[in-house]
Order: sequence, then C-alpha cells, then structure tokens
Amino acid sequence: MKKVDHIGIAVASLEESMVLYTEQLGMKHMKTETVKSQGVTVAFIDAGNIKIELLEPTGPDSPIAKFIEKRGQGIHHIAYSVQNIEDRITEMKERGIQMINETAKPGAGGAQVAFMHPKSTGGVLMELCEKKEEL
Amino acid sequence: MKKVDHIGIAVASLEESMVLYTEQLGMKHMKTETVKSQGVTVAFIDAGNIKIELLEPTGPDSPIAKFIEKRGQGIHHIAYSVQNIEDRITEMKERGIQMINETAKPGAGGAQVAFMHPKSTGGVLMELCEKKEEL
Repeated sequence: MKKVDHIGIAVASLEESMVLYTEQLGMKHMKTETVKSQGVTVAFIDAGNIKIELLEPTGPDSPIAKFIEKRGQGIHHIAYSVQNIEDRITEMKERGIQMINETAKPGAGGAQVAFMHPKSTGGVLMELCEKKEEL
Repeated sequence: MKKVDHIGIAVASLEESMVLYTEQLGMKHMKTETVKSQGVTVAFIDAGNIKIELLEPTGPDSPIAKFIEKRGQGIHHIAYSVQNIEDRITEMKERGIQMINETAKPGAGGAQVAFMHPKSTGGVLMELCEKKEEL
C-alpha cells in the first residue's frame, strides 16, 4: 500500500458531474470509458497527486445504481496502488482482512483490482489496484 | 485546487482504527491531536501521496458522532490543498458552489479550512485546506 491511486465517487450523471469537476472546481478530465463487467461508465479526473474516478451506472442493475439508491451520490471507495496484487490479497487475508474478491479482476484503466470488505475496514470500501502503466 | 491533502474518515474508536491502518494495512501513524472546537480527536496516517485523517468524536454532540449515528463509520470528506483560502472561497461562490463556511476557520494540523456544501458538490463533503507548512 504505497499510495492512493484514486477516490471513486458514485454519480447519477457524468454530464452534470463534469460541469462540477472541470468548470466549477477547475480540474482536468483525463478520459472516459465503460467497464461493462462492472456496470459503470468511468470518467477519470486529474486531482493533481491522485485521480478522482467518477462512476456512473450503466443501468438500474449496476452496483453503483444500487449504492446511489441506498445512500445517495457520494464517495464510494478508496483505491490503493499496489504491486503484485495476488500477493497483496494473500497478505491482507493473513492479516485478518476479509476480501470481497479473493482473486484480482479487470477494472477501469486496464488495472487489476480487488476489493476489501467494509466490515473489515471500518466501513470504508477499499480497493487494491495494480496498473501495468500509469494512465 | 492543486492536489488532495487528505481524506477524512469517521471512526468510532481511534484505538481500533490504528490497528487496522498501521498493523493490517501497514501505513505509518504521523500524529494525533484534539481539535476541541470541532469535537474531534484526529489521527493522521501517511498514505504515501496523501494523508488519511481519522476522526474520532470527543463526545455525543460532536458532528462526527452524529455522522456515525446516521451513516455508520466511513469516509467523511475529501480535503483539497489550496493557497489564499479566502480568495478560493470567493471564487467557489462566484462559480455557484454553496459554502458551509463563508470564511476560513482553524482545523487540525494548524490549517485554515472551509467546507463546501455537499448539495453543491454531488453529495461529497469537500474541504478547502490551507497549510502554512507541511505536516
């Protein structure tokens, strides 16, 4: 866990959020992509030392749609940048952290990702995120 | 808004959280202080490129106690590092952002801080944070 890669934020509309982050807050939009397997369209915003990952649901069955329905728009997760993600998953389990994903799966930006269960991490959804190259 | 200074996380017990962040996640504890005016004891954790600010309520009337009662433990806010905070507050208001604090107030770590209203910022509590020197 060397550094934070990004903060994931659940948004109802990327179009509206883009006005907030780029025009009002003055940050730069990096790229947008859809990750069908996770039911999200993701826009990356450059926040200087980390990225902000805006997550818009692709449909009503998306986990992000359910999150917004239950809690409203807002911060969804924190992602830590790691190397050798499978080793890190093993290490976390050995240290008593419950993993949602016991093996890494493909995420946005060509990353391999695995989530830890918020029950183990003080109510915070945390992601391990390994990228072959920087976005 | 040049970079993220810290992520604020509401915790019921700093003692338990310290086990999570230092022993299980392997991060380093930087310092702990109480900010009486805000009803919190704050522990700073070094997450590499940003800090994690663990917020434990000092009593049942603390805003953090109320947050935990309503939403449970979890991510409370994102703080952006700024310079000339009063100018930034004026600028945010001109851009249509509703401020909770229309003038800066003292925060943890000797910072001057001002919060934006989550209604203006997609459900995310955001803080402007000016520090005279790095923690």
